[in-house]
Amino acid sequence: MARSSLYQQVAAEVRRAIYTGELAPGDQIPTETDLMEAHGVSRNTVRLALGELENEGLILRMRRRGTFVRERRPLLMRPQDEFPSRDQDVDRRLDSFVHAVTSEGRNPDQNIEVSIVEPPEDVATRLALADGGLAVVRRRLRFVDGQPYNTNDSYFPLDLVADSEIARPGNITRGANRVLEELGHPQTRVVDDISARMPTSDETLRLRLEPGTPVVVHVRVGYDGEDAPVRVAVSVLPADKHLIRYELERQPASRP
Amino acid sequence: MARSSLYQQVAAEVRRAIYTGELAPGDQIPTETDLMEAHGVSRNTVRLALGELENEGLILRMRRRGTFVRERRPLLMRPQDEFPSRDQDVDRRLDSFVHAVTSEGRNPDQNIEVSIVEPPEDVATRLALADGGLAVVRRRLRFVDGQPYNTNDSYFPLDLVADSEIARPGNITRGANRVLEELGHPQTRVVDDISARMPTSDETLRLRLEPGTPVVVHVRVGYDGEDAPVRVAVSVLPADKHLIRYELERQPASRP
Repeated sequence: MARSSLYQQVAAEVRRAIYTGELAPGDQIPTETDLMEAHGVSRNTVRLALGELENEGLILRMRRRGTFVRERRPLLMRPQDEFPSRDQDVDRRLDSFVHAVTSEGRNPDQNIEVSIVEPPEDVATRLALADGGLAVVRRRLRFVDGQPYNTNDSYFPLDLVADSEIARPGNITRGANRVLEELGHPQTRVVDDISARMPTSDETLRLRLEPGTPVVVHVRVGYDGEDAPVRVAVSVLPADKHLIRYELERQPASRP
Repeated sequence: MARSSLYQQVAAEVRRAIYTGELAPGDQIPTETDLMEAHGVSRNTVRLALGELENEGLILRMRRRGTFVRERRPLLMRPQDEFPSRDQDVDRRLDSFVHAVTSEGRNPDQNIEVSIVEPPEDVATRLALADGGLAVVRRRLRFVDGQPYNTNDSYFPLDLVADSEIARPGNITRGANRVLEELGHPQTRVVDDISARMPTSDETLRLRLEPGTPVVVHVRVGYDGEDAPVRVAVSVLPADKHLIRYELERQPASRP
């Protein structure tokens, strides 16, 4: 977000080397001194850069042994990418999964199943559906480099989207949120709830989870200009493979 | 999948009884046999239904003793409360834990331990400390109604805070962030990373976790106006007791 500082540039270089495979899992990262010389920066800058990569789960620093590329890199999900804070940025809006994967040079893929359902009670409540009310659900199983990674189920009130692409099978290139806008229900506010739990046996199977791996559940409810809920998206993210990041900035009081 | 299956209907019935208070915290849930008869369903269906409620953290199944409504409702944490987006709101800034607990009519409490340490490597990196650099850590064990609930460890570069209240034992009523401001290092940006994992044995003990309860780890790095890191706060939140919420709003393009 905002300007890219020096350490972020160094981090980006090393990140690129990891994603391109120039540095493979298990490989040792160049020493701090090497990186200082290579980029003409201070030790602190190098440390900040490595700290960033460590936070992202890309590298592992082992006292006295050096720094190594991790075997399993968690995917950095930025839910804010899908909901930019200004309308002007709307065209930069990205599916945060696809963006996270492609920016790592990896290959995203997904299966989409579209159906009309009476949604689970908690989803029905969040969508303010009448008793027995129906929703369109777009269920995705998402893959990275062919491995199942997470699931994302998006529910929409049937009344709202019945005649749109949202209710039809297949991917929507410009995104379901754009279709909601065209239907006169742009989302102006979203509420994200994040929790974790152990997976159901169905999830363990579908996502091929290792035993003892919890899942992070990210639920986003989108509201239109009238504050009516128009979308509930439930993502199930295996905890060993995902990191969720939010950035908050303070606007100085002096600015108009 | 498709419409609400039989077990989901049974789960919905029990869920409603819990939410309406018909079944209160600590109450025993009807036995499997009772539920089979009441709903005219198989034992498997009842088990699936109870499994769903268990995943939601609503009930606790205890071998040979029965199934009970859980005492603990997850605490709604709003990390944005501690970092309002406008300077004007700074006085409304709240400790999100204390706010979450008191707004539920429950009683917050905490132990604070202040010490000077060589922080764990990942924290040292995030704080951009030089090798062997020291930090002040304020470690809190937090309680709700006398029960241990979560931990929050906040690290500050020693150089920055050595002469301030932050380095001294005891609570800081106006908050450590305010002290950072007075020291000339107001946080203008924070980055929150959220992940989950199984607890360490130390955490299991300290937080009195039930077996199989994952923890959510919330790490906030705060940066001052020069983009130097001034605080790293690590919260360990037992997943059965916490829900994290972020709200995003879009500013309409038409506004200045």
